[in-house]
Amino acid sequence: MPGLPLLDSIRFDQRGLVPAIAQQHDTGEVLMLAWMNRAAVEETLATGRACYFSRSRDALWRKGETSGQVQRLVDIRLDCDGDAVLLLVDQTGVACHTGRRSCFYFAPRDGVLAELTRPEVSPEALYGA
Amino acid sequence: MPGLPLLDSIRFDQRGLVPAIAQQHDTGEVLMLAWMNRAAVEETLATGRACYFSRSRDALWRKGETSGQVQRLVDIRLDCDGDAVLLLVDQTGVACHTGRRSCFYFAPRDGVLAELTRPEVSPEALYGA
Repeated sequence: MPGLPLLDSIRFDQRGLVPAIAQQHDTGEVLMLAWMNRAAVEETLATGRACYFSRSRDALWRKGETSGQVQRLVDIRLDCDGDAVLLLVDQTGVACHTGRRSCFYFAPRDGVLAELTRPEVSPEALYGA
Repeated sequence: MPGLPLLDSIRFDQRGLVPAIAQQHDTGEVLMLAWMNRAAVEETLATGRACYFSRSRDALWRKGETSGQVQRLVDIRLDCDGDAVLLLVDQTGVACHTGRRSCFYFAPRDGVLAELTRPEVSPEALYGA
């Protein structure tokens, strides 16, 4: 893969998707895991803002388009076998639709899942009533 | 999902798999992305060592079993919609089969992929000649 363009090196799966981890570039916090198709990668590289592919909506998902919680792309990494992407981003506000900074807020405690963080902003404030 | 056991809250895909990010617990470095099935999650929780599911070998993959590069589980997180897992681990040695600390070592530079890191150990030393 060295010497090839990124887009020619990503091994998209049979659905044309690759998993993409978003990490806050300076703190190292893992914010979310989403999916990208080829067009999402192209748009992300072209605009410098994270664009994913929404499997539920079957459409490009310009992160923050509705909520304002955009992710500025700082760098993008591809893994050793080309089937996973790491986006280093600068997250405006919160990454999670629940209003939390990170989507990874559940952890097992005493045998059951607990919420480790509280929302920093209400979903209503992010998406309207 | 709060109040339910982790295993009852993970939304495995149609193949019975969930993507799992491994992150070094103290430095925040994202080491790799792999996949887990239910048995891999159960074994990881029971042993405190990361166990994945190898799609290429179609079998449980006890990380480090051959190479010695094990991952001690520090914590495990589930995301907001239950379809991605984050393992906070203490990585012995290197995570990548190429001998690099992290699998995410490719990045686009001047339009083509460059390798940002060099192997810290040779694959031959990890896996034998």
